Amino acid sequence: MNLKEALQFVEPHLKKSRFEHTKRVVETAVDLADFYQADIEKVELAAALHDYAKYRDKEEMKRWIIEESLPKDLLEFHHELWHGPVGSLLLKKEAGIKDTNVLSAVRWHTTGKAGMSLIEKIVFIADYIEPGRDFPGVDEVRHQVKLSLDLACWMALRNTIQFLMSKKQTIYPDTFHAYNDFTSRLS
Amino acid sequence: MNLKEALQFVEPHLKKSRFEHTKRVVETAVDLADFYQADIEKVELAAALHDYAKYRDKEEMKRWIIEESLPKDLLEFHHELWHGPVGSLLLKKEAGIKDTNVLSAVRWHTTGKAGMSLIEKIVFIADYIEPGRDFPGVDEVRHQVKLSLDLACWMALRNTIQFLMSKKQTIYPDTFHAYNDFTSRLS
Repeated sequence: MNLKEALQFVEPHLKKSRFEHTKRVVETAVDLADFYQADIEKVELAAALHDYAKYRDKEEMKRWIIEESLPKDLLEFHHELWHGPVGSLLLKKEAGIKDTNVLSAVRWHTTGKAGMSLIEKIVFIADYIEPGRDFPGVDEVRHQVKLSLDLACWMALRNTIQFLMSKKQTIYPDTFHAYNDFTSRLS
Repeated sequence: MNLKEALQFVEPHLKKSRFEHTKRVVETAVDLADFYQADIEKVELAAALHDYAKYRDKEEMKRWIIEESLPKDLLEFHHELWHGPVGSLLLKKEAGIKDTNVLSAVRWHTTGKAGMSLIEKIVFIADYIEPGRDFPGVDEVRHQVKLSLDLACWMALRNTIQFLMSKKQTIYPDTFHAYNDFTSRLS
């Protein structure tokens, strides 16, 4: 599956605004893949497919989490987190995607995790900073992303944890583990 | 061991200022135990003993963590966190404390954990709000502590996570789990 096919594949599954977001994530991610010498074909595929399961029915996602080998603790956290792991699963089943680099970048794009690969980091941060994003702190991360990808990811995780705490929401453990992992690497 | 004996037991192990802090934690914790109808004798004992291992040599604490059944991941985090678990261990060995309520309140007084008992919460929050403490946000927690003990603990955990993130420090996983646990209970 090439980029054009991937975009055609996801478009019917996304709202128009989400498809526009997806194309901006692809552009941002490809730029970063070029800059950091990552595998551009894998990065653009993961970026194009990252929100594939975004609008799946909540009950359907719950069933996939229960029936397949996905972490059951997802069910205790906000359903907004489910589309990454479920998307990764469904891209294997429904689009025949086999590349584990692509699938894992989709899987971890919302929460992050400890020990992220270059491709995972690029898709994670491209989703955070694509030019349509406009929230406190995003410009600082944009400024950082070509100076230190790790520091940019750290900032995005810190901002996300702060935001969730300000809303009195729980935080998925892998987001904490990602924060700790980047903190250790950067110190 | 009663309160007087506990204070006599810890005094030689603490700097003068830390011993004064300990007595203020006892007063604060006893007041809260009375208010929340917790077992006052256990609370005052745990409060008196909570910093017993505070000034143990770092290498000695490391040895206890390695040799005894304490979580090995402590070694990957700031040594400031070690005196709770090591203190709990040494109070059993060196003071003959057997009461698991007292020992666990000492053990978790710095990090917190998911599923804290009433005694654990009281010692944790008394250590945070005793009248000698003066840092941003502490007055808000003092104001909250007799309205909702859980919300006060939640605020203390949120403030601690924010503070550690502002210092680019790692955060012990049990502190995250405590934050998530209180967040779920309060929502």
